[in-house]
Amino acid sequence: MTSESLTPAPEHKFTFGLWTVGWQGRDPFGDATRAPLDPVESVNRLSELGAYGVTFHDDDLIPFGSTDAERDALVKRFRQALDTTGMTTPMLTTNLFTHPVFKDGAFTANDRDVRRFALRKTLRNIDLAAELGAETYVAWGGREGAESGGAKDVRLALDRMKEAFDLLGEYVTEQGYNLRFAVEPKPNEPRGDILLPTVGHALAFINSLERPDIVGVNPEVGHEQMAGLNFPHGIAQALWHGKLFHIDLNGQTGIKYDQDLRFGAGDLRSAFWLVDLLETAGYQGPRHFDFKPPRTEDYDGVWASAAGCMRNYLILKERAAAFRADPEVQAALRASRLDELALPTLGEQDTLGGRLAGLLADRSAYEDFDVEAAAERGMAFEALDQLAMDHLLGVR
Amino acid sequence: MTSESLTPAPEHKFTFGLWTVGWQGRDPFGDATRAPLDPVESVNRLSELGAYGVTFHDDDLIPFGSTDAERDALVKRFRQALDTTGMTTPMLTTNLFTHPVFKDGAFTANDRDVRRFALRKTLRNIDLAAELGAETYVAWGGREGAESGGAKDVRLALDRMKEAFDLLGEYVTEQGYNLRFAVEPKPNEPRGDILLPTVGHALAFINSLERPDIVGVNPEVGHEQMAGLNFPHGIAQALWHGKLFHIDLNGQTGIKYDQDLRFGAGDLRSAFWLVDLLETAGYQGPRHFDFKPPRTEDYDGVWASAAGCMRNYLILKERAAAFRADPEVQAALRASRLDELALPTLGEQDTLGGRLAGLLADRSAYEDFDVEAAAERGMAFEALDQLAMDHLLGVR
Amino acid sequence: MTSESLTPAPEHKFTFGLWTVGWQGRDPFGDATRAPLDPVESVNRLSELGAYGVTFHDDDLIPFGSTDAERDALVKRFRQALDTTGMTTPMLTTNLFTHPVFKDGAFTANDRDVRRFALRKTLRNIDLAAELGAETYVAWGGREGAESGGAKDVRLALDRMKEAFDLLGEYVTEQGYNLRFAVEPKPNEPRGDILLPTVGHALAFINSLERPDIVGVNPEVGHEQMAGLNFPHGIAQALWHGKLFHIDLNGQTGIKYDQDLRFGAGDLRSAFWLVDLLETAGYQGPRHFDFKPPRTEDYDGVWASAAGCMRNYLILKERAAAFRADPEVQAALRASRLDELALPTLGEQDTLGGRLAGLLADRSAYEDFDVEAAAERGMAFEALDQLAMDHLLGVR
Amino acid sequence: MTSESLTPAPEHKFTFGLWTVGWQGRDPFGDATRAPLDPVESVNRLSELGAYGVTFHDDDLIPFGSTDAERDALVKRFRQALDTTGMTTPMLTTNLFTHPVFKDGAFTANDRDVRRFALRKTLRNIDLAAELGAETYVAWGGREGAESGGAKDVRLALDRMKEAFDLLGEYVTEQGYNLRFAVEPKPNEPRGDILLPTVGHALAFINSLERPDIVGVNPEVGHEQMAGLNFPHGIAQALWHGKLFHIDLNGQTGIKYDQDLRFGAGDLRSAFWLVDLLETAGYQGPRHFDFKPPRTEDYDGVWASAAGCMRNYLILKERAAAFRADPEVQAALRASRLDELALPTLGEQDTLGGRLAGLLADRSAYEDFDVEAAAERGMAFEALDQLAMDHLLGVR
Repeated sequence: MTSESLTPAPEHKFTFGLWTVGWQGRDPFGDATRAPLDPVESVNRLSELGAYGVTFHDDDLIPFGSTDAERDALVKRFRQALDTTGMTTPMLTTNLFTHPVFKDGAFTANDRDVRRFALRKTLRNIDLAAELGAETYVAWGGREGAESGGAKDVRLALDRMKEAFDLLGEYVTEQGYNLRFAVEPKPNEPRGDILLPTVGHALAFINSLERPDIVGVNPEVGHEQMAGLNFPHGIAQALWHGKLFHIDLNGQTGIKYDQDLRFGAGDLRSAFWLVDLLETAGYQGPRHFDFKPPRTEDYDGVWASAAGCMRNYLILKERAAAFRADPEVQAALRASRLDELALPTLGEQDTLGGRLAGLLADRSAYEDFDVEAAAERGMAFEALDQLAMDHLLGVR
Repeated sequence: MTSESLTPAPEHKFTFGLWTVGWQGRDPFGDATRAPLDPVESVNRLSELGAYGVTFHDDDLIPFGSTDAERDALVKRFRQALDTTGMTTPMLTTNLFTHPVFKDGAFTANDRDVRRFALRKTLRNIDLAAELGAETYVAWGGREGAESGGAKDVRLALDRMKEAFDLLGEYVTEQGYNLRFAVEPKPNEPRGDILLPTVGHALAFINSLERPDIVGVNPEVGHEQMAGLNFPHGIAQALWHGKLFHIDLNGQTGIKYDQDLRFGAGDLRSAFWLVDLLETAGYQGPRHFDFKPPRTEDYDGVWASAAGCMRNYLILKERAAAFRADPEVQAALRASRLDELALPTLGEQDTLGGRLAGLLADRSAYEDFDVEAAAERGMAFEALDQLAMDHLLGVR
Repeated sequence: MTSESLTPAPEHKFTFGLWTVGWQGRDPFGDATRAPLDPVESVNRLSELGAYGVTFHDDDLIPFGSTDAERDALVKRFRQALDTTGMTTPMLTTNLFTHPVFKDGAFTANDRDVRRFALRKTLRNIDLAAELGAETYVAWGGREGAESGGAKDVRLALDRMKEAFDLLGEYVTEQGYNLRFAVEPKPNEPRGDILLPTVGHALAFINSLERPDIVGVNPEVGHEQMAGLNFPHGIAQALWHGKLFHIDLNGQTGIKYDQDLRFGAGDLRSAFWLVDLLETAGYQGPRHFDFKPPRTEDYDGVWASAAGCMRNYLILKERAAAFRADPEVQAALRASRLDELALPTLGEQDTLGGRLAGLLADRSAYEDFDVEAAAERGMAFEALDQLAMDHLLGVR
Repeated sequence: MTSESLTPAPEHKFTFGLWTVGWQGRDPFGDATRAPLDPVESVNRLSELGAYGVTFHDDDLIPFGSTDAERDALVKRFRQALDTTGMTTPMLTTNLFTHPVFKDGAFTANDRDVRRFALRKTLRNIDLAAELGAETYVAWGGREGAESGGAKDVRLALDRMKEAFDLLGEYVTEQGYNLRFAVEPKPNEPRGDILLPTVGHALAFINSLERPDIVGVNPEVGHEQMAGLNFPHGIAQALWHGKLFHIDLNGQTGIKYDQDLRFGAGDLRSAFWLVDLLETAGYQGPRHFDFKPPRTEDYDGVWASAAGCMRNYLILKERAAAFRADPEVQAALRASRLDELALPTLGEQDTLGGRLAGLLADRSAYEDFDVEAAAERGMAFEALDQLAMDHLLGVR
């Protein structure tokens, strides 16, 4: 492994939210530990570190309540930084959670006027997204949920959620924007329970929309792990549905509050399988880091943390590639019959009399199947998994 | 609350799996504590307790490996018990997890011959389901999963899963059976991670099938709670998609091993909101208990536990009805603006110039919206939730 | 149940932290939703609601950085409110977590000067505690922990923790204060992992101190439940060790971020068993509510939430008393052999030849023990638990 | 890293339970997938793989209900295998959970005769432990717990637990056995909640015993992780109390059912910090693997899995040593002020007027302390943690 191969470069498509390196460290029990960070400095520093772009919520760049003039000035200055550095903005999103007006939600707030305000706030920022050339618009409904059972009629709330996404879809279509939406699921925090809590729930919801083709998901490592779910499995299902429009990479140490550790921290083995999947499945989107440098850190620590995200991705990418290229691994995969999983369960012969007829007529499939002999076959998964461990740890 | 109103009767549609009262208490660390239970006795006892029907896996009634003659005799004797008692069998399912041949899965086993065997085993039991008049066929893929990252290519496994459900759908359609499938999600146990881990993932998967209309979900209380998810929220989403084909009621005390406590045990407040939802949403299917009487119990304890499931449902049903009927609750719901959640976010006026034009032109929605004033409005959820608590506890 | 019996009164010893009703609703993703609350108003309102007293961190009453003159004025005004209302301050504590100087801990911060500052800040507030007649001084070390493995040498940190508590113990002893310490455990949040994460770890630590007799624990419902632990079990062990010096009552819906719901919300059945335990075990200390009214609420909701905490405690107290008084319950407890659990395992006869000799000589205990017959005895726990459910729900 | 350094040898003190490689794969939902394994074969195979010894429950070697003659023959044959291979038996334990007689516990069963039987069963096997030269006797009370609140009076149960350990301590003392006890905590499974659920609770309990000096803990990786606790932190506290008498190494992927994966699988980063701690703290006891080869495996997989446990330990041991030896790491540790954590908070100067006087008189500690300046110091933990990651992954 050469140091060159571990050097981030724009072609790796590493992106960072302005709110990540710019997080000041305010948490439920403590005040900010870091001074505010100028978005332009973020662009410059991240560019120097090898990133491809930045992403942001409207309010990250343009403080809530700014006048149009202030807004224009901020956007202009920011665009100059992008132009100077060559950094991109492949994704934008809306902050529908910080201001107290969103305390009961945005698209599904019980108050109708709050819902309308939320839609307008989103539409406004979609224009900026299009203007800046973003191709993905993320929607994290962090406040869409409840702490108590009577406070939200979930079926009605889903009606309102659908109404919102149908409207947004209509807008980008009418405007001709080259923009797709990515719903970001999360099970809880800051609400006791959040609607569309997992990748699965979001994928199901999307199918009910008027324009399901332009809506996908933006899964976040820690969010799924907060529900104890296997993140690479969730990503695989999102890919299988053709819906992995964007991804949020970070780290989490199990089921607890949302940690947003740097990528690689937390469940390292899961991170290995995730990178293996993204790289072999041909995912072309940004590798977007949505992390929070711990509030113990000053800005040196912030940049070290950001650099660590990218470094860990690149290390894991090399290790996963070596794993897949190893002939012993390939033999182990065959020993575990991964090749057989690739074969349709119904074969050519089954389809002669219709798909079912062949199977039903095949006595070797049931009547004459030696169940006990089949049951005795070992799957050889432990040997395969140890090979993966060896590659991850670099001992082969 | 009268004792009559708490007496289970067939119209309540309470059903039990044969494997529930018949569980012998074998667990990962201990041997059986109860002798085997004759399915006919289960039918008789459950009928006496007021149940509407029983459900079963093929192997619950007909031991794995029985001859055709044995099978016929067992089915005949079982049908006689049903006829005598008037008990129904609204749901059947397949055991694709106990025999070691399924150790790596059934529909998604890496071994193709195991997959074919699993399909045949299922098709055979579907015939019995149709014969017995079942309307729902549940599919719990408890072994479809993995303990290590290389052992399963999830995208290929989903291909095989889709292939299986498409085939089963074709079969019941061709045969003209009045039978719908219900996929039962579970996040883990007995596999480290199971495919289609939550209601959401299952709903998303169903949309990819050839016959999505005849496939729904069979959510189980404890399974979703093992992922820390809000069960009534998941049920609400399943109802919203029109996919709540069946339901498994039991209890679970948080994120841990699958406990299968009797209904009401575990998260009681969640059970209250669940019953409230099922009863107000017009769910017409069976109230199916999928629980395990703790292995500390002898058969007296088993029947006490089964009776407790039904009793707790009926108590909660009365309490939920009283909650909804209470004028003070109705006022509290309005104070929390649940009525506003029922209103479309876009109104009549918005649609004059197209749905978007009205909203975009409405200055009161954004430019002139008094965000701070709106933010100050309390949601009054705590008062509402205490009313619910009072009703649950019977102190109003 | 009469409305009188559900009316909170000082003899119930209900206390509230100033930081609870005074929480402004700032969370990791959102700004404050409520204006600051004057501590004097909290005293007045809580007194009207029937509370016995209030508790506070130094900074709750006296903003960090106040001058001595400001401090004196604030304390004086506060004491007047106490005198007027008759409210007490049975517990005080130190804020060692909000200011960024504590970002890596207080008593176990890597920086020695921070540790010294933390001790001085604590000593100063202990003087105030003694002055106000508090008998318990709580120590929640919310920042004593780490997010990464190398950042904290836990054994050294425990040395520093012990040094701090030994010093504090020496101080109150030298000063002759009638004050005992109560360590409040928490597994995580705001740190990735916090030292002394559970009641058990804190109890073990206390045994290593110079003055273990004046140090006990202050368990909080939600904190133990964030580790999936059974709260009444933990309280029972604390009582067994004679170490339940104080208690924090609130609600939590499983393993996730720290929710601080009002008491009764969350795991209601666990709350029932907790109240049953506290009331039957003769716990004499305050029933202290450490909750956060959800940020969806305005101040009407805050007071409704506070009232709900007390109301739910009183409902559960009545229900638990009725459970214990019910002859059918007493019979069920005997059927479950709770009376046998109260008998020593070794009996009179065993001690004739020394405790062991009798047991070893008793052939009925082993050689002639009919294991299979004993194994067949049912424990009758399900019937007992349903009686508890019936009492909790008020249907008996 | 040489292949030699990764070759297990007796000096590494790797031990395995007979029940680990001998687990037949029976789980809550499935039958055994592997034939029984002769304990002698386990001794031979593990010896060939480089292990130092084996451990066992009485029933692992001598089936429950064996006659004395059968017992003697089995022990004799087993001892021959030990003698032939040079394998040791440093730990023994009692099976107090498999037989249905223990369904409600052993030392704390409600039934007194079951408690007496459990003690006698344990005493008998302690004799064998002494005979075989074991120095540690593990006590896992897997059935000591409850599924419902009324079923167990925890304070009484702790009385019975103390009675049992006091008796066992008396026995080994009277007999002059060189044997210490190690309590193994677990939060749940197979009981809904188990008594002494964590390392902390067990450490606290031990302090209440008559002979606390001969009782320590046997923490298991997965058990603490099932409560979401940081395992190295728990081990550090056990070491700090001088109570790490034994350890169970395995893997677990978060809060769910007890997985018993091979060591290294699951949370790899935690395993790194654990090995770092054990090796630097001078832990001298066995590195005992308590894992279950997944039931997908045949015996080739079982031995591959056992070999993987040892291999992963040795890899991590080398990586941890390199981390500690790296000058850049040492500088990073200083930058994070780990050296300051090693300094007493009170210094020489403080003790002139008594420990407190110096601190109270030190204006630099409080009055003149520049809190804001101190708050601005970054802790440099992210850089340190990335160095640890680099060493773990072998990229330095």
